[in-house]
Amino acid sequence: MSAKYAIGLDFGTNSVRALLVDVRTGEEIATTVWGFPHGDAGILLDAKDPNLARQHPRDYVAGIERVLSDTLDQARARAGFAPGDVIGIGVDTTGSTPIPVDADGTPLAFHKEFEDDLAAMAWLWKDHTSIAEAEAFTRLARELRPQYLLKCGGAYSSEWYWAKTLHCLRTAPKVFAAAHTWVECADWIPALLTGTTHPSRVKRCVCAAGHKASYHPSWGGYPDAEFLARLDPGLARLRETLPDTCFTIADTAGGLTDEWAAKTGLRAGIPVAVGAFDAHLGGVGSGIQPGALVRALGTSSCDLAVSPLDQPMPDIPGLCGIVPESILPGQYGLEAGQAAVGDIFNWFVNYMQPGGPEKGSHEALTRGAAALKPGESGLLALDWHNGNRTVLVDPRLTGGIIGLTLHTRPEELYRALIESTAFGARIILERFEEFGVKIDRIINCGGIPVKNPLVMQIYADVTNRAMEVSRSEQTCALGAAMAGAVVAGKPAGGHGDFAEAAAAMTAVREKEYAPDAANHAVYERLFAQYKKLHDCFGTREYAENLFGVMKELLALREETR
Amino acid sequence: MSAKYAIGLDFGTNSVRALLVDVRTGEEIATTVWGFPHGDAGILLDAKDPNLARQHPRDYVAGIERVLSDTLDQARARAGFAPGDVIGIGVDTTGSTPIPVDADGTPLAFHKEFEDDLAAMAWLWKDHTSIAEAEAFTRLARELRPQYLLKCGGAYSSEWYWAKTLHCLRTAPKVFAAAHTWVECADWIPALLTGTTHPSRVKRCVCAAGHKASYHPSWGGYPDAEFLARLDPGLARLRETLPDTCFTIADTAGGLTDEWAAKTGLRAGIPVAVGAFDAHLGGVGSGIQPGALVRALGTSSCDLAVSPLDQPMPDIPGLCGIVPESILPGQYGLEAGQAAVGDIFNWFVNYMQPGGPEKGSHEALTRGAAALKPGESGLLALDWHNGNRTVLVDPRLTGGIIGLTLHTRPEELYRALIESTAFGARIILERFEEFGVKIDRIINCGGIPVKNPLVMQIYADVTNRAMEVSRSEQTCALGAAMAGAVVAGKPAGGHGDFAEAAAAMTAVREKEYAPDAANHAVYERLFAQYKKLHDCFGTREYAENLFGVMKELLALREETR
Repeated sequence: MSAKYAIGLDFGTNSVRALLVDVRTGEEIATTVWGFPHGDAGILLDAKDPNLARQHPRDYVAGIERVLSDTLDQARARAGFAPGDVIGIGVDTTGSTPIPVDADGTPLAFHKEFEDDLAAMAWLWKDHTSIAEAEAFTRLARELRPQYLLKCGGAYSSEWYWAKTLHCLRTAPKVFAAAHTWVECADWIPALLTGTTHPSRVKRCVCAAGHKASYHPSWGGYPDAEFLARLDPGLARLRETLPDTCFTIADTAGGLTDEWAAKTGLRAGIPVAVGAFDAHLGGVGSGIQPGALVRALGTSSCDLAVSPLDQPMPDIPGLCGIVPESILPGQYGLEAGQAAVGDIFNWFVNYMQPGGPEKGSHEALTRGAAALKPGESGLLALDWHNGNRTVLVDPRLTGGIIGLTLHTRPEELYRALIESTAFGARIILERFEEFGVKIDRIINCGGIPVKNPLVMQIYADVTNRAMEVSRSEQTCALGAAMAGAVVAGKPAGGHGDFAEAAAAMTAVREKEYAPDAANHAVYERLFAQYKKLHDCFGTREYAENLFGVMKELLALREETR
Repeated sequence: MSAKYAIGLDFGTNSVRALLVDVRTGEEIATTVWGFPHGDAGILLDAKDPNLARQHPRDYVAGIERVLSDTLDQARARAGFAPGDVIGIGVDTTGSTPIPVDADGTPLAFHKEFEDDLAAMAWLWKDHTSIAEAEAFTRLARELRPQYLLKCGGAYSSEWYWAKTLHCLRTAPKVFAAAHTWVECADWIPALLTGTTHPSRVKRCVCAAGHKASYHPSWGGYPDAEFLARLDPGLARLRETLPDTCFTIADTAGGLTDEWAAKTGLRAGIPVAVGAFDAHLGGVGSGIQPGALVRALGTSSCDLAVSPLDQPMPDIPGLCGIVPESILPGQYGLEAGQAAVGDIFNWFVNYMQPGGPEKGSHEALTRGAAALKPGESGLLALDWHNGNRTVLVDPRLTGGIIGLTLHTRPEELYRALIESTAFGARIILERFEEFGVKIDRIINCGGIPVKNPLVMQIYADVTNRAMEVSRSEQTCALGAAMAGAVVAGKPAGGHGDFAEAAAAMTAVREKEYAPDAANHAVYERLFAQYKKLHDCFGTREYAENLFGVMKELLALREETR
């Protein structure tokens, strides 16, 4: 049998990528990226509201055609490749990125009336306009449905589905009224490719529904209409448009339409998998399985684990989400994360610009930091420059550093910042294990693990665990391609399940970062101090007086700005 | 009567300055500075021991001749000036800077045998070789003579007289054995000028004895021989060479010798005042009086106040020193201070080099910081980069900052660092007042108040007090010259006392920094948060767990370096 291929379509914040993968070897044959043309690098902004971030759904449609065609063109250069050997497609997107659509499933943004209306666009994951609505959801849930909060870290986020739709209802009622329903980008793309965008046909993924829209089988799916009506009757009407059942990436959204086949050169009818969020398919592309923690390290971190559905799964306080089958079918999907990792290093280099132009690059600071021994700088930092996602779930925390002397140098601070993110990672790791999710392996993916060996070594030394690094640099797209291979199925040359797909298509790099015992001994002591700062500034229980300090600073800042 | 003049000789860390002043107007007629030629900018270092810092006494002798001659030459250019119109000399020096001398009062460093021996040099104030000996003194005093610690902030310092002499005894016994006694630089210079260096004749100043050698009238002067013998019998023998009575700057060390008169062109026999430390005479040169706090702001701060001897004076916890007549005759001299002020700003500019070359200068950062409103940055810093002198008296504390976000900019940090030193200053101010030392005015001197109006405004806003700035930029040398004018006395054209000298010779600048009520309201809230961090990290009483954090970081640092 000739080689078979699957394609992963990866919709990011600024661009869309297609990755064509050999399903037997995992070899990445061809890939192209296309930057979204609308707005500022694909993001529609509002000069009056820095919290607003939207995408134009037209960019999705144009992007699919462009990257599929270009990727296939690239692949044709390879001897023996034929587009007909592509057997399936998978899709990952950002999220929660809900799109208001009409009764036919067409985005309102495609109607002339709404084509320039920011409220009618896709509400990008990082849109923070809906803080008040998130707080309203959290308050009401705390009162009436505390269970809703137990699976999402104790607080509903302004980045999520119900907060965004409620904000639209309150601030752009015409758009809300015109929308028949709101569909996550992760659901709308597979529907578009398979001609199933009609609201009655679109298959919604458990990943988006579970992690962002409070969908959970234990309470019968999405939040009940009675609860939503207490927020606004409009939300109860929206609830009526949502299905009782959501789907996993092992499910097929449908077959590629003739129209898309004609546009791209792919075979009509090849299956397109139900979508999922980029980070989750990044976990799949890193070979996630029970016992493995996958850490996607970029500007922030996303920490993913899975645990068999047939084993007990407690509510783990502080985790962003615990959702059955949100990552892999048959497994609970567990999501944690740090609100900033690479963003902290970038802040130091780009905003602080320490040490002048020669000494202030990531490379130079990393060299300097690598020459230091753990503990040598006397510094200790808190990695909360963007708040804390796991386990404190508190955006109103800020970064900090102590141990400064008149001799403290930039490379010492840089190392302390790296160490702070390692301590934050260790808190997450320990939280998983405290609640019975055993972690045997840590697999790192994303840009940082490949670019910065020092970060990996420090993570190994702080956690006393070996750090493995995913072979692929495009694990999200790879995971999507794996979903394509699985929905294609074994008879078509794909895979029978994700375990089989992972064995064939994923791998870690030869270089593994082993913990150094002496360094770990020092980090044990530093971590004990980090834990004190973490608990003192981040929890009420430890030192009531300090808990308020960062809050008061933020309050003052807002009042005086 | 023709104009009369006094000269202040100001011995610093790197250089010596002479300042010739008109005693009736305070006009500074001529001044010259001469850098000490020995060592690194006047400081003898030891490559093997970064704590060691000495000066060569030969530099003092050569320096006096040089700056007196040059200053008189400069003054001669002025119509009507004649060296014969100089009526008195005053001297200020660094301290504790003790010099081992032989039975004739000649520095051991002048003997061939010891001319290259670092232990035989002047032990400069910032020599930190004697940490163990300071701890030994503190421990023994805590056990046997707790009163010794009550006047010096609760701990004896490695910078002080008995620690340094004991360290010499332990590590350079030949030098200690060869020394008949140890004379503070502040005492030796006036003795040299007046031919009274013989140990039986040298007049020791209450300023050095009281602040650095535990001299206090309430326990009969210097520490008793029995106590010192418990540290080492050698110290008890040194004690025997010390007088029962010390002197103030209103006392005359003697008359200028013929030899010095011939060398310089001054009149033989003009009185030379007993010496004092630079900071203290800086207070005098700023017009210190009861109710006025004089803050000398440079790399660190020195906060001086005086209080009439006939009023009760409690022991004020955390103050570096409370010594009768150490600043002005008839007044208690009170000394407090911050271990780093300008040094923190310099650290940020020189070590961190934020924002690249254009944006990272003091001037540029000050401009950026001045454009910010209090509270706007959300930042809060601790000014402990060099430990805390007053009121915590703890060198094992470090600087810190919280409130960092991904958008924090260098000028925000710079302002937060300035604010941190203002909060530290307020802690000192409040400590004075809590213990009944009323402060009606704050007079600032030193380089920063003249160079950086933003610092002054922030200090005014944080403390809610007007900030006045000394007219003179050489307040130490001016204070020394005032001592010269006072010992010269009224009949000779000088002054009857320091109040009269201050009225004639000192002034503040027209520009006074008034507190802004709105800014102060914000700073009230920020200070409340600063106080929490201060107490949590700096005291045991508040949050036992946090008190240890900075200590453990320093311990780790020392272990791993």
